[in-house]
Amino acid sequence: MTQRYKMTVSYDGTNYAGWQFQKTHPTIQCELERAILERTGETVRVHSSGRTDAGVHARGQVAHFDLETRIEARYLQPGVLAFLPADVRVEAIEEVDREFHARFSSIGKQYRFRIWNDVVMRAYLRHFRAHVKRPLDLGAMRQAAADLAGTHDFTAYSSNPNRPVETNVRTLRKLEIQGNGPEVLIVAEGNGFLYKMVRSLAGFLIQVGLGEEPASEAAVILESKQRTARVPTAHPQGLYLWQVYYSDKNDDATV
Amino acid sequence: MTQRYKMTVSYDGTNYAGWQFQKTHPTIQCELERAILERTGETVRVHSSGRTDAGVHARGQVAHFDLETRIEARYLQPGVLAFLPADVRVEAIEEVDREFHARFSSIGKQYRFRIWNDVVMRAYLRHFRAHVKRPLDLGAMRQAAADLAGTHDFTAYSSNPNRPVETNVRTLRKLEIQGNGPEVLIVAEGNGFLYKMVRSLAGFLIQVGLGEEPASEAAVILESKQRTARVPTAHPQGLYLWQVYYSDKNDDATV
Repeated sequence: MTQRYKMTVSYDGTNYAGWQFQKTHPTIQCELERAILERTGETVRVHSSGRTDAGVHARGQVAHFDLETRIEARYLQPGVLAFLPADVRVEAIEEVDREFHARFSSIGKQYRFRIWNDVVMRAYLRHFRAHVKRPLDLGAMRQAAADLAGTHDFTAYSSNPNRPVETNVRTLRKLEIQGNGPEVLIVAEGNGFLYKMVRSLAGFLIQVGLGEEPASEAAVILESKQRTARVPTAHPQGLYLWQVYYSDKNDDATV
Repeated sequence: MTQRYKMTVSYDGTNYAGWQFQKTHPTIQCELERAILERTGETVRVHSSGRTDAGVHARGQVAHFDLETRIEARYLQPGVLAFLPADVRVEAIEEVDREFHARFSSIGKQYRFRIWNDVVMRAYLRHFRAHVKRPLDLGAMRQAAADLAGTHDFTAYSSNPNRPVETNVRTLRKLEIQGNGPEVLIVAEGNGFLYKMVRSLAGFLIQVGLGEEPASEAAVILESKQRTARVPTAHPQGLYLWQVYYSDKNDDATV
């Protein structure tokens, strides 16, 4: 009788080729599967809520896996943690029903995209913020964001390398721009995200903030349903998978 | 006719053996002197407001140096920056009078000590917070901090490896404890600091927060003027030299 586990994972994506298993480069998935094997002796497959790209960080990635021999979660969590490198942390493990699926049970996600908006990058933030040197017009960015929030076909703000999906319609429940001196934060929350959607939205919002595109073009490009060079993909080091929502909990995380 | 320059530097102390020149390990001072040499052709000595230990970060370290041949600061700053590694950033350079001295002209400093107070360290903060697993009692820490602020002989909260100084009396203008979920911040501002003083204050405040020492002992230990094992030195990765004050500017930095 196998037991399914849900785990919440934070990681520093700097030294990884992203989430997904690769033969040639270290990935977060590999580190987790190796640590679980070392702790339990079982070769498992870890399924995430969705992959993250190289250099992208996670505050609250969620993944599930099954064990043939049940181990109490309170013993499993510190055991797995002990076999992980310091840049991947299993923050919690809980036992869940067989029906739980990290990806398909999710009802939404929050991403955060963090920008350092000043001429010189703060040294100790270099792996953790996208650097934009010229001053951003947050008012213009908020105007564009207002047109992008809601339910739309987001083809123009995604990248689709050989991935046929049923629909590119998603609901962006929240797209907020916050500023605090050189710190600029984009909060994107929705029921689901297309491939590279957050970095594409951030890329275009930055263009608007720099005055390279008028805010009103956000809706025009959205309606075109065509991805063009007018929508750049923002640098991965500013992006954090902040929280994955499931119907049983919807707490608003702030740190 | 030599020209003196004041520069403001941020650094990620993770990969350095601290500020001060060493023959065998990389230091911040070496990187700056090398970059200035590469930009100007002049071999200079860079004088800081005070050294920082291995692993300690800086948001606003200040240092000065002299050039035989004057270069306008607006050209010098990007030129030096171009020869620096990404974890050391010259954020500003300005021309100053010959009387300016990064250390002796300073009228005070602010340090920040950042703690991650939760069972599991957040992966991407591991080099930038001290990790305290058990919950801290911030109320008790604030009580102790109130007794430590002010003008005192801080011998009991410093380390003195063969450094005779004229007096160990310093004025701690501010010693604040702030909490926001797992983030705990100690802000220490004063007219000057003894060697390892902030890490010693943080170390004892953490002991109080953990219930290992009563808050009232802060003053008792202060009056003893004896450094003992009751005052541990907190880990360097939580410490930031936040700002150095000079009489001409006293802005309150928040990021």
